[in-house]
Parts: sequence; structure tokens; C-alpha cells
Amino acid sequence: MTAREPPRMSASSSARLRQMLQSSELEFIMEAHNGLSARIVREAGFKAIWASGLAISAQYGVRDNNEASWTQVVDMLEFMADASDLPILLDGDTGYGNFNNVRRLVRKLEQRNIAGVCIEDKQFPKTNSFIDGERQPLAEIDEFCGKIKAGKDSQSDEHFSIVARVEALIAGWGMDEAVRRAEAYRQAGADAILIHSKLSRPDEILAFAREWAGRAPLVIVPTKYYSTPKEVFERAGISVVIWANHLIRAATSSMQAVAKEIHESQTLVNVEDRIAPVNEIFRLQDADEYSAAERIYLSTSRGASSAIVLAASRGTGLEAVTTDRPKVMLPIAGKPLLRWLVDAFKQQGINDITVVGGYRADAIDVAGVKVVVNERYAKTGELTSLACAAQALTGDTVIAYGDLLFRSYILHDLVDSPADFCIVVDSSQTQAANQSVRDFAYCSVADDRDLFGQEVLLR
Amino acid sequence: MTAREPPRMSASSSARLRQMLQSSELEFIMEAHNGLSARIVREAGFKAIWASGLAISAQYGVRDNNEASWTQVVDMLEFMADASDLPILLDGDTGYGNFNNVRRLVRKLEQRNIAGVCIEDKQFPKTNSFIDGERQPLAEIDEFCGKIKAGKDSQSDEHFSIVARVEALIAGWGMDEAVRRAEAYRQAGADAILIHSKLSRPDEILAFAREWAGRAPLVIVPTKYYSTPKEVFERAGISVVIWANHLIRAATSSMQAVAKEIHESQTLVNVEDRIAPVNEIFRLQDADEYSAAERIYLSTSRGASSAIVLAASRGTGLEAVTTDRPKVMLPIAGKPLLRWLVDAFKQQGINDITVVGGYRADAIDVAGVKVVVNERYAKTGELTSLACAAQALTGDTVIAYGDLLFRSYILHDLVDSPADFCIVVDSSQTQAANQSVRDFAYCSVADDRDLFGQEVLLR
Amino acid sequence: MTAREPPRMSASSSARLRQMLQSSELEFIMEAHNGLSARIVREAGFKAIWASGLAISAQYGVRDNNEASWTQVVDMLEFMADASDLPILLDGDTGYGNFNNVRRLVRKLEQRNIAGVCIEDKQFPKTNSFIDGERQPLAEIDEFCGKIKAGKDSQSDEHFSIVARVEALIAGWGMDEAVRRAEAYRQAGADAILIHSKLSRPDEILAFAREWAGRAPLVIVPTKYYSTPKEVFERAGISVVIWANHLIRAATSSMQAVAKEIHESQTLVNVEDRIAPVNEIFRLQDADEYSAAERIYLSTSRGASSAIVLAASRGTGLEAVTTDRPKVMLPIAGKPLLRWLVDAFKQQGINDITVVGGYRADAIDVAGVKVVVNERYAKTGELTSLACAAQALTGDTVIAYGDLLFRSYILHDLVDSPADFCIVVDSSQTQAANQSVRDFAYCSVADDRDLFGQEVLLR
Amino acid sequence: MTAREPPRMSASSSARLRQMLQSSELEFIMEAHNGLSARIVREAGFKAIWASGLAISAQYGVRDNNEASWTQVVDMLEFMADASDLPILLDGDTGYGNFNNVRRLVRKLEQRNIAGVCIEDKQFPKTNSFIDGERQPLAEIDEFCGKIKAGKDSQSDEHFSIVARVEALIAGWGMDEAVRRAEAYRQAGADAILIHSKLSRPDEILAFAREWAGRAPLVIVPTKYYSTPKEVFERAGISVVIWANHLIRAATSSMQAVAKEIHESQTLVNVEDRIAPVNEIFRLQDADEYSAAERIYLSTSRGASSAIVLAASRGTGLEAVTTDRPKVMLPIAGKPLLRWLVDAFKQQGINDITVVGGYRADAIDVAGVKVVVNERYAKTGELTSLACAAQALTGDTVIAYGDLLFRSYILHDLVDSPADFCIVVDSSQTQAANQSVRDFAYCSVADDRDLFGQEVLLR
Repeated sequence: MTAREPPRMSASSSARLRQMLQSSELEFIMEAHNGLSARIVREAGFKAIWASGLAISAQYGVRDNNEASWTQVVDMLEFMADASDLPILLDGDTGYGNFNNVRRLVRKLEQRNIAGVCIEDKQFPKTNSFIDGERQPLAEIDEFCGKIKAGKDSQSDEHFSIVARVEALIAGWGMDEAVRRAEAYRQAGADAILIHSKLSRPDEILAFAREWAGRAPLVIVPTKYYSTPKEVFERAGISVVIWANHLIRAATSSMQAVAKEIHESQTLVNVEDRIAPVNEIFRLQDADEYSAAERIYLSTSRGASSAIVLAASRGTGLEAVTTDRPKVMLPIAGKPLLRWLVDAFKQQGINDITVVGGYRADAIDVAGVKVVVNERYAKTGELTSLACAAQALTGDTVIAYGDLLFRSYILHDLVDSPADFCIVVDSSQTQAANQSVRDFAYCSVADDRDLFGQEVLLR
Repeated sequence: MTAREPPRMSASSSARLRQMLQSSELEFIMEAHNGLSARIVREAGFKAIWASGLAISAQYGVRDNNEASWTQVVDMLEFMADASDLPILLDGDTGYGNFNNVRRLVRKLEQRNIAGVCIEDKQFPKTNSFIDGERQPLAEIDEFCGKIKAGKDSQSDEHFSIVARVEALIAGWGMDEAVRRAEAYRQAGADAILIHSKLSRPDEILAFAREWAGRAPLVIVPTKYYSTPKEVFERAGISVVIWANHLIRAATSSMQAVAKEIHESQTLVNVEDRIAPVNEIFRLQDADEYSAAERIYLSTSRGASSAIVLAASRGTGLEAVTTDRPKVMLPIAGKPLLRWLVDAFKQQGINDITVVGGYRADAIDVAGVKVVVNERYAKTGELTSLACAAQALTGDTVIAYGDLLFRSYILHDLVDSPADFCIVVDSSQTQAANQSVRDFAYCSVADDRDLFGQEVLLR
Repeated sequence: MTAREPPRMSASSSARLRQMLQSSELEFIMEAHNGLSARIVREAGFKAIWASGLAISAQYGVRDNNEASWTQVVDMLEFMADASDLPILLDGDTGYGNFNNVRRLVRKLEQRNIAGVCIEDKQFPKTNSFIDGERQPLAEIDEFCGKIKAGKDSQSDEHFSIVARVEALIAGWGMDEAVRRAEAYRQAGADAILIHSKLSRPDEILAFAREWAGRAPLVIVPTKYYSTPKEVFERAGISVVIWANHLIRAATSSMQAVAKEIHESQTLVNVEDRIAPVNEIFRLQDADEYSAAERIYLSTSRGASSAIVLAASRGTGLEAVTTDRPKVMLPIAGKPLLRWLVDAFKQQGINDITVVGGYRADAIDVAGVKVVVNERYAKTGELTSLACAAQALTGDTVIAYGDLLFRSYILHDLVDSPADFCIVVDSSQTQAANQSVRDFAYCSVADDRDLFGQEVLLR
Repeated sequence: MTAREPPRMSASSSARLRQMLQSSELEFIMEAHNGLSARIVREAGFKAIWASGLAISAQYGVRDNNEASWTQVVDMLEFMADASDLPILLDGDTGYGNFNNVRRLVRKLEQRNIAGVCIEDKQFPKTNSFIDGERQPLAEIDEFCGKIKAGKDSQSDEHFSIVARVEALIAGWGMDEAVRRAEAYRQAGADAILIHSKLSRPDEILAFAREWAGRAPLVIVPTKYYSTPKEVFERAGISVVIWANHLIRAATSSMQAVAKEIHESQTLVNVEDRIAPVNEIFRLQDADEYSAAERIYLSTSRGASSAIVLAASRGTGLEAVTTDRPKVMLPIAGKPLLRWLVDAFKQQGINDITVVGGYRADAIDVAGVKVVVNERYAKTGELTSLACAAQALTGDTVIAYGDLLFRSYILHDLVDSPADFCIVVDSSQTQAANQSVRDFAYCSVADDRDLFGQEVLLR
């Protein structure tokens, strides 16, 4: 995705996250949980991503109790970083073990272009803070400070950030303990403090911020006190607000509604207009870039990849059988002429086929072909018809009359030919079939093998 | 998830899918792309899941060109099977290589409880059929039949299904080729034929079904001809309809809208009511089962895990300082009595703390505790207050007066005690402090060590 | 590997492990750490595998401190089970978390056909018992029993075994504690007890076994008391002996020696005879089964896949230029005749080419071809030469004289022909070139197109 | 591993590989297939690693036919890079798909610090070149050049190398084709050409090198022509020689021999001295660095982590029961005094226990403790005994007489004390028990609570 067309951001993703933490502006970070949501976060205009532990476990269908292994989390992070090119702050639970697991985690995150990790002072395996939060034991301060130090000592990118999340308020240890822990974590090297609360009002957070008095950047997660206006946070000196789980929740409710609707109605008609079109999925996947790259890297691998079939004229002498269809639709051995041609092209790997119709173009079988119409077919010749398909003349192209039948080697050798222009002539034709048309080629000697495969100079 | 509480379905998931393919009823299968959506599909009432290659690649943020490795796809499938317990039919692209890759794939899918795989007659790496479908080369029939045979020969579960997807109509090779291929795949052992079309009307599909005449179950994917009523499919003898990408599309549009809304408004108030609550995510993750299991497998690992603090009475003799707060909120060395108690409990791993308030219960600091109120505190005693907290008496529980201060070893040894009931008595108390209350314990000899830690028989 | 050709063992792998634990015979289990070593353990005759945590971490190049995630361990186990088809007992450290992680682990192991797991009563993340073993804290008994119960309650295969490893002797808690823990673990449901010791003599183990008195099967790991004869273990009533790390140690010392030797000598000649031949690696990978399967599943996908070139005769009339080489080695436009032929075959996907030499067969360029020799070339004809290559007549085969030159379409159409036998005749030949040879085909009319591609009846 | 202690190499690993390719010296690269072997390659002195596709598939126990997915290969590469810190050249088969898969591969390799990739001009899925090499179809030149270009355009590290492997000689297409392909690949951007041969003599390679005449660096793999002296390669202008599979072959033969030996003899005594000691595995895993880091990051997390028990003196008045053992081994309630002490320490997390023995030190139960001996116990006092254990005085240490019994809270509170020095005194002792010893502390008032927990100033 963006690895292919990176946005114009000069700084590294870790430097951008650090700048957000340290900026005097209030910044906002949005949750994502897979490559798709990460891409959507970027397109919405956010400057960074919160890789939520809850949301990542939820999308896997497992619980927020470290049921997914830490490498399974890291695997998804890699897809997210590739798809968004935004700085990602990982919600790293407790660091997935002790100081040593944190060291390893930091190195693996840096390799995957993750900008920072937030670790919380609980114990492995963790439980989501909003589930019996007050019953959860906290980590010992010294042990947690050891994790922070170990993490900071392990980073090789100076801008990689470690955010220490204080759970003391959630666990009911009170404000003093919260501040005491925050200060210890700051001194251990944390780049910012995430102070968490599960009250429906921001009182605890604001009290903490007052007490903290700007000793280090503060990060908050207003999931429960969601109705607080941002101005309140600005005045309190908060650095970063994390919208922590809103995309997984949006996806959940809409998928539930759509699944229910389709199951009950047994039809798609009610939902088609409410959901993103398939092409929007393709766009988010950057499908066009693939097609473009295919032209650059793959087009040279075949002789010709496209064909134009000239089938506009009604033909002379066949009026009796072409009242309701053009000549190319006449059946030969049970199959229309055009189908013989198309099958021959397909077998040779020529899949981009344009038929120039005219007379009864409406009766042309469009399966597997594009049809363009020479409206003036009655008054113009093959060259005009060819001009109607001019836009199809990309790369090597086979141009054929619509009423030809030929053995497969004819096309095979034609495609293999290295010549710039190559004309196939039936060497049994020793005189111009249609003397009024001057552009026919013919052989002076019937079945003359001397000319077989010869290169000639066109003048 | 459902691996923990499986729905009552006696047949294996592969047998259920096979039955759907062979049933005379028209059946519907819904797309899912991760554990969460798989769970939602089950809850909506669907009987099986289509693990869409497009949707799985899209959620990873990569393209539908085999950018994710086949094991990355299988990893996600495992989460989906665990989360849903529904039969899953994998959209297996071309089988991710040759006959041998198909053999390996089938074995790995069976291990992960995937019910079947659909493979298509294109070439690896594939491109989505709706992107330049007519330009894509098809596999040779014999080679593709070899894949089907190899897959069927590799399955150890007789009900595992291999569905052969015919791309001839998409690629523009026409109806004859489509039928010829379908027949060859059927003879090679395919359990069903998926006939794909990208027309906005079902004409091709219906024509194919007529020609096919029920030789084997037919599966269709009406993404493009979505407005066709199901009765049309029923009459045509279709076995299974796949709704192939509608949940990823639902998730995409809602995430885009919510991300945009939050980014622009910088507040959650506009979206909170439109998205699933956090608790709904917990429910989908089956969080309650964890809490239940914790009680079974983890409760024995600590002495006590809960405490009740009796703090309803105003106390006598302290009226002057308790006009606006109860006794437990009186500061001792700068910290309320209650906070000293709570901190002591927390340090001992007792995190489930219930305070029974009464007099000025509104002034109790609720951080980290639950408060229940003995409304009749003025007229009742401690036993009534305890009764108010009866529901908190689960497992070993410490019951304490609200006005106690004690050294940490007191609580430590109390919690460690193996006795059924254990009462801590201050041995310096040699007479009942309150002679009107008969339930006080006291020591006959001050600081008598002989009784220390003794077990006594209560009568 | 053995998934493809499973040994004749009727019982499931978990049943086989359980039987070994419960058998009255002393059984032996050998360490393996990847698919290759697992296969080697089977071929040596062992009945089960110890998937050592130390060895698996060592092969990854990380430490035995849970640096590899539990899913990275499980990924390797899957390869091991596939490659060996033996029962595997996983050295599962502490269960990688709490009771819930053990539940999930058991389910994931069962899916991958792992027969059992051994968990030890230490704390996550663990350290190897032989590194400061006495300094390592043990798990609380109740909490560890909860893990055992949770694991047993999660298995769906009744024969899946959970072995409880007692670290009390290693940690220096003494025999009483060891027995007390073993008994608690047995009552919690453990299928066997692994009693570990780091003494260089078996005294502790034997004392434990006496005290234990057969309450449940005993498993030991005599890494440190390696010199104890097995009869001692038999008399003590031990059920299973684990050789815990000897293949990783064998691999390490030999790789170190070979790497050093090659680095210093800068040649392979000194090591070639001391290491397994490349073909032995192929054999362990079961490469032959692939070739056999390719013939079954892939051979039909091409027209012809082999060719025989008859080039035994010296030819007549070319004696002057064939004194030192056969006719096929004569240069045409700078390239030997044979090379023109071989290139034409290769371009048509015919890669299995056998040249029947005779006269000056030693001068034939063998690149890309097999050469067989008709020793009696001087006295016999082409039919005898063809007979010399009879073993090459597998599947559709092109047979060509060695002195032919032809355009690519000739071979292309020949290979495409559905006829059982197809003979290409140069229609400009209107008379048998060599009248003494009766098996020449020729055309009655030069360049007669009427016969082109006709099917004829050979009589 | 080396990520923790990187060797002093200033250039990036990709720059180092590029330099080896371009150097005028003949360089040697050794195969590795997992983290362990990668580490061994570094220690042997090699400057780079060949991540062999054959060896990596073999260690997984699967075939060299792309049975392992490309991400499973990349997962192992990451372990190898982490463990060795050497430049790694991946044997990348055909690039695992088309041009787009190569683009993705290159990005993923760069992230994991892999220095380059070699891709070969065959078709996916591949088969090992030494298995029916001449039957394998080659890639089309243009398509393969597209892969090379796509890879080069995708790298973000200018030094990342793409080596193009020419299979034309293996496949029997001859020297002209080999040179034609090599030249096309060079022009497409390949940083070097790997020319492969399966002859047992280097003739083809040398002929190619002559024809090639240094247009780009040449890499060779002399597995089959292993006896050729390196001087021959030097004279031919070869840049890099790859020893391609010798460590997996060394590991295989030694594991086979050791497994066979142990299985047949049912004892370890015959192999113990032939294989690497367990400590050598620990060393290769860098276990010491963990212990060192634990001291830095984890030591502060506990109060005390070590204890010294002074048990050298015989004691007075107990001669009758200490004829064959020291006082600490006297049984109290069925358990030796020392065991009561050790159990108390262990329960408090104090696992590093040193006992200073003297009289009958030989009778001390060493389980769980280290014993040092005060040889002059009869003539010296406790201070001398303590001096014998001076090396154990690291971090906070509890020092105890060997004949103490105490309740658990005593030790618990002692360990929790924040004081620099903390002395526990039995307050019921109101006079020095042993008046000849002046270092006893005693209380002036029995059971005086006023001093409880007081901080005092030592003078």
C-alpha cells in the first residue's frame, strides 16, 4: 500500500510519534486493528495509530487475556504498518513477560517500523482494564521500572517511544499511588505517561494532571468519559488523546446489522447501497498499482497480449445468411466464426481482444471480448474500423479480419516473431482476392517455401 | 469462543458443509475474514462461512494477488474456525501452487477444522476475477484436474469437500468451454462446481445450469447479479449461494464514516450511540467464560481475595470531626483511614473490597472499592451492616472494622492461615473495650504469647 | 514425510504415548528440535519424541527464557509431527502463562497431533533449570494444580497426556516438598510426574521413587546423572527415561567441526566423506514420493514430456566430416545438429531427452541429455537403436532421427495432437529417400494440403 | 545473540555482502539453516551466510518444492539474522511467484536485515536442481528479467543485492543459452550471476567464466565439483564460492549416529564425550548475557534475594546430640533446623542461600543451598564465618544464625524494610543470653512495643 506510494512525510514514523507526544498541541490517535482499518485511519487524516490490544484480540476472535501470542500480534502490526505508513503506538499490555521479553519486543517492533509501545503496570497474562479492573493486581514498581529501562536500553532508533501506563486509578490504589508510580516510571526513562481511568467523568484524570504538572507528556484514553469536550483536555495540558476502540466497534455493529439483514431477507438488494462497493475494496488495496506494475514488469514477457478483430462489414455474397447477424457470427462446425478466433487467441495467451463491429454489431457475442462499433461501417473500410479500436493498440497487437480460420501454429509463430511488423500471407493465394482493394498481399508463386519466415523490407 | 461452548451440532463441520452442498434446498453461506466476523456470521444464523480470499487479503491490507502467503491465510482461518465453530469453505485461489501444494493445503486445513476448499482454474499468483477478468489466463484442464485428484487423495476426513471453480465465463472462453471444464473437474473428483460470472444479470449462470442439468451440486456467487431473487436460483437447481464479500464491505464503509466523523469533530459524542458498546466486544470475545474459569482454576491460588469493611456507624466520641464525613474518612498521617485499609488489602492481593457505609456514606472515597449502604445504620449494628454486603461473601473473605490500623504481617498471616475461621485479637486488650457489646474478644493475659497462632474451638 | 507414508501403527499417537507412560517396561524417549531431527529419531527406532524447550530455543538461536513465543514453538512442533508421525511430548515450560494459556495450548497441540505436554512448576518466563536452578522461584501449588486441571478439562482426546514436572529438588526445597507437590499434582489430574534433579548421581531420584511408591508413572531426565545404568531405573520403577538434548548437542559439535575445517582449509575435500551425502538429505525429505506423485498428478498436463533421438549410425555420404564425431555433432549455422534438436525440444517443454548413440558416441555433447549406446550400431538399424532406449518410453514420447531440422510449429502441433500415434511427414518428399529402407513415409503429391492434419488408419 | 553484542563491523550487512561480491578476492560463504547454525558459521570465521533453500526445507522436514511457505522461510531467516549478525544471502528459489511476489519479498527481507537474495530462472513451485534437473522447465527470459527489475526497484537499501541464478546448464540448454540469459539478467540489474552446474568437474563453470569475461561478479556452488582446488576458481575470476549444504549434512550424519548409538545401547555413556556439553549450548544461546541483564533490570524488584546462614560452631550444651552432625541438622518436629530456615527463605523469594559450615560440615544437607566451610571454626567466631561467605554478599542479604526458628512475618517484614541495615531482636530477651559474647542485642523491657519497627541510629 503506502509502502508503494508513501505520503510525503520526511521524518521517520518514530520521530513523528515522538513529536506528537512532545508537541504543545493536543493530538489525536485513532485505533486500528488490521491492515484495512490502518489504511482507513490514514485516509481519514489522522497522524498516528493506536494498535489496540483489545481490538487486535477481538478481530482474531480471542480474548484480551494474552490468548494471541505476542508474535501473532506483531504479525498483524507488520501488515498495519505496511498498509498505513503512519506511526503506530502499540498497546503492548504488560510487555508480554519480564524485562527480557520487553527487550526482544522493542527490537522486533523497530524492525517492523512501529513507532512506540505502551506498557502497563499489571501482570502477565493481563485482563482488560474495564473487566473487574479493581480486582487486578499491579506490578511491583521496581520490576516495572526495570522493564522500562530494559526497553529504552534496547532501542536502536533514538525516537522509538516507550509510554508507561499507570493502572493505579483503575485498580483503586488512589491518586498518591498513581503519581508515585508515574514519577518512578518517568525517572526510569518513560517518554510519556498514559494515565487511565474508568470513571464516566474526567475528574480523576484532571486531578492527576494537576498533580503531575507537566513533568512528562500525558496520554489519555477517554473511552468511559467520552463526552468530555477536548477543550477540557487542552486546558489540563494533555498531550495526546487516544480514541481507543471505535473502529472495531463501528465494524462490529455494521457487520452485525448487515449479516442479520441478509440472513433474514435472503437477498442483497437491501444492503448493496449501504456498504462499500467492491471497487472501493480494490482501491483500498491499491489494485491499480498492481496493474501499472504489471505493465512495467510483466508486459515484455509475452509476444502479443492483445488482438483486434475487424468485423464491421457485412461482407459480400453472404447476404442470405447475414440478415440477423454479422459474418463473424456465422456458425462453422457448430461454433461462430468469432468464437473460433477468440479461442485461438486465448490459447495463445492473447486475452485482451477488441472486436470492431458495424453491421448488426448488436448480435455479436460479447463473451470474452470488448466490442467497439464503427457506426459508418457501410461507407468506410477496414482502416476506419481499425481506427475505431486505436486505443486498444497498446503493446504488440495482432490485427485480424473477422472471417479467418487458421491452424494454431500460424498464430504461434506470428506471436513468436521478433520482427517489428509481421504479416501472415496465405501462400496458396496467388492473386489478389479482391482486386478493388489494393492492400491485399499475395504470393507470386503458390506455396513457395522460399519465402517462409523470411524478413522482408516494406517500402 | 465456541470451542469453549460449542453449539449443539452433532455432525462434524465438514459433514455439515457436505450436507449443504448435497441438499435439495437452496443454502446460503456468508463471507467472513477474521475471528470477529466469523463469530458474527454464526450469531446471525448462517450455517456456514465463506473465507473469502479477497476479504482476507483486504483485512490484512494487501492485494488479492497472493501477496499474503498461504500460511498467513491458514493462520487466520484457524482463528475463524475457533471463533465460530461453523463449517468454513476456504476460497483457496488456485491452490497456491501445483498439485503438491494442494495436497499439503488440504492436510493443513483438515487439522484446523476447515470443512472444504474451493480452487479456481487460473494460474498462481492469481488476480481477482473482477479485475481484468477477461485478460487472465486459465489453467490447463489436465493440470487442474491433477490438482483436484491430488487434493481428494490427500484428505483423511471423508467429508472434506473440494469445490472446483470454473473461470471460463469470466475469462471469456464461452459456455462450451465452461461446461467442458466443469465436466472434467467433476470427473476428477470435485464435490461441487462453482460457476462464476461477472455479468450484472444471471443469464450466463442460468444457461450454464440448464446445460449442466444437475450432474453435481452447483455453487454461485451473485456479487454482480445481486438483484436476482433467490427463487430464480431455486428454480435453476442451484445448491449454494455465497454472499462473498459483504461483511468486509460493511465494515469498510462504517469504519470510514466513523473515522471521518471523529477526525473532523474531535469528539466521540456523535458516534458513541451508533457503534457497538465496549461490552458487546467483550461479549463477542466470551469474556464471561474467562471470569467463570478463573473462579474454577485460579481462586484456590490465593488465601483471601475479597474484603468487607464495616463503616456504617458514625462512632461515638468523634462527633466533632465527623460532621461532614464518616469515621473511615478521617485522615491519619495525611491519608484517610479507609485508604490505609485499602492499601493494606491491595498489597496483600485482596482487590475485591466492599465498604458498607451508612452515616455520610456519600463522602466515602470510592476509588478501588465498591460501596454498599446500610440505610438503617443509625438503628442497627455491625451484623446488619455485614448482611448488606452478603453478596460479597464469595470465597475466603476478610471482614474488618473500618477504624483499624495494623501492621502488614497481621494481614499476611491471617490470609495464610489454613483455618476455616480465623479471628485476629489484639493481645494487649485485656478487657472488652465496649462492655455493652458481647461479641468482643479479648485476652485474659496481656501480650500472652502462648495463644499466638493457636487453633481454638469456637463454641 | 510420514504423513505421506505412515508407519503401520494402529493406535493414535496420544494413545501410544499414554501406553508408554503406563507400561511396566522402561521406555526411552529421544529429543528432537525440528522436522529433520524428528525424522531421524523415528528412523533410529525410538517410539516417541521429547520436544525439548532448550533444544527448540537453541535451534532458533534464542535463549531458554521464553524468548520464542509459544506459537513459534507450536509452529515447529507441527513440522516435527508431520515429519515423524511419532508421539511427541512437548516440554511446555510453565504452560506459557496461567491456567487459560494452558487451556489454549492443549487445544492447539491436539490439533497438531501432539500427544502430550509436560509443564513445570516454575514461573513465566522461565529459565533453564540447569542455570541457577536453586535461585528460581517455584509456582504456588494451588495455582499450578489449577493449570493441570484446566489442561485436563480442555483436552478432547482422552489419551492426551499432561505430565507435571516437579522442580522442588532443583530449587532446593527438599524431598518432602517434592513429594508433597507431586502428590498434589497427581490429585489435580496429572497423568505422570517428571521428577527432575541436577545431581550427577541418581540418589535424589531414587529416594523420590522409593517415597513415591508407584502412585503414578514417573518420568526422569538423566542429563546430569547420565552414567547411571538403565537397570537402576528399572529397579526403581521408573516408567520413562528422556534423553533430553543429545541430538542438538550432536548437531552442534559436528557443525562446529565441519565449519571450522572448511573455513580453514577452503576446500570441501576433507569433509565430503564425513557428512551425509546430498542424496541422503533428499531421502529424508521423501523426495522420491514427490517424483512418484508428479507422475500421477502432473504427467497428463503436457503432451509429450520425453524424446528419443536416434543417432547411432554414422550415416552415408558424410564420411569425410564424421571421422571424429557422429552426424548429430556436425555444426549447422554454428551449432551442432543435436543442439538444434535439444533446444527445440526444451522450448516445447520436453526436457527428458535420450540420445541413442553408436558411432563415436563418446563425442556426443551430453549437456541436457541422457546418452545410451547401441554397441552394435554398425550392424543394426534404427529399430535396434530404439530398443536400446526402451526404458525411456514412459508416457508420450517424441521419437526423432538425429539429423532433422524443422520449424517450431511442427513440434508444437505434433505435441498437441490427440492421436495415439502421430507421424510427421515432409510433404515435399514425394519418393522414398532411401529405397532400401522400407519404413520411410512419403507423400504421393508434393505439398498436398489435403492430408494436412488428417487422421489416418495405420494398417 | 549478536544483536546484543554485535561484532565490530562498521558497515551494514548488505554493504558487506556487496563488497564481497565486488571484491577482487575469492570469498567464501557458508550455508546455515537456523539460528544455531548461523551462529556457528559466524564463530567459525566466515563473513557471510548462504540461507540454503534445500537446508531450510530439510530442517523443517519438508521437501525442496516450496512446501514451506515463503513467510515460513522468512521467519527462520529472522532468527538467523538475529543470531549471527552476518550478511545473509537468501537462496530465494524462483522468488516465490511473479514480479510482484519478488517486490514484496525484497521489502520483507530488508526489514529483517537480510543482505540479498538469489533467484533462479525456473518456475514456481520449484524442484531442487539436483533432482531431475534436466527435466525442469526454465522461466522465460523476459519474465525473469521483469522479476529482477521489480526487485531492484523495490529495495530501499542501495546495497541490497539481487543475484540471478542461471539454470541453463543444469537444464541442458547449453552454454550459449546460459550466456545469453546471464547477459539479459545483468542488463536487467542483477548484481551478480550465479552459474550453476551439476557436473562433477568444473569444466562448464570454467568455460562459462571464460565466455563471461568479468561482465559482472560470478558466484558458484561447487557441491558436485567439490574436489576442485580454490586456485582454479581464483584463476577463473570467480568472486564468491558458496559451500551450500554442508552444515545440514554434518548435522544429519552426526544426529543419525548418536540416535542410533543411544537407541541400541540404551545409555548415554558412549556419546557424552562426543557431543557438545549442555553448557556449550547455553554459551551459544548467550545465556550469560541474560544473567547479567537480570542483575541490571530485575535485581531491584525484590527486597533481599540472598541469605547467609552461620552454622559453623558446634554449639555448647548440645554435645550429646551433635556427635555426627552440626546443630543445624538437628531435627525439629521431624525436619532439620536448616530445612526450616531454607523453607522460610524460599517462601520469601530468597533463593540464593549460602550456609557457612564448620563442625561436621560434611553432614549438612546441601539441597538448595551452597555450602562454604570455615575450616577454623573451632577457634574463630561468627564474624570469621561470615567472612568466609563474603562473596555471597551481593545486593540485599539476610544474615541468620543457624539455630533460629521464627514466624514467617518476621522475615516478611525484614525483607520489606527500607532501612539500610535492619536487625531483628526478640523482644522477650531481656538479657544477653551469652554474656561472654558482646555482640548480642537485647531489650531493656520485655515485649516493649514502643520500639517495634523503629528506626534507630547505630553508633
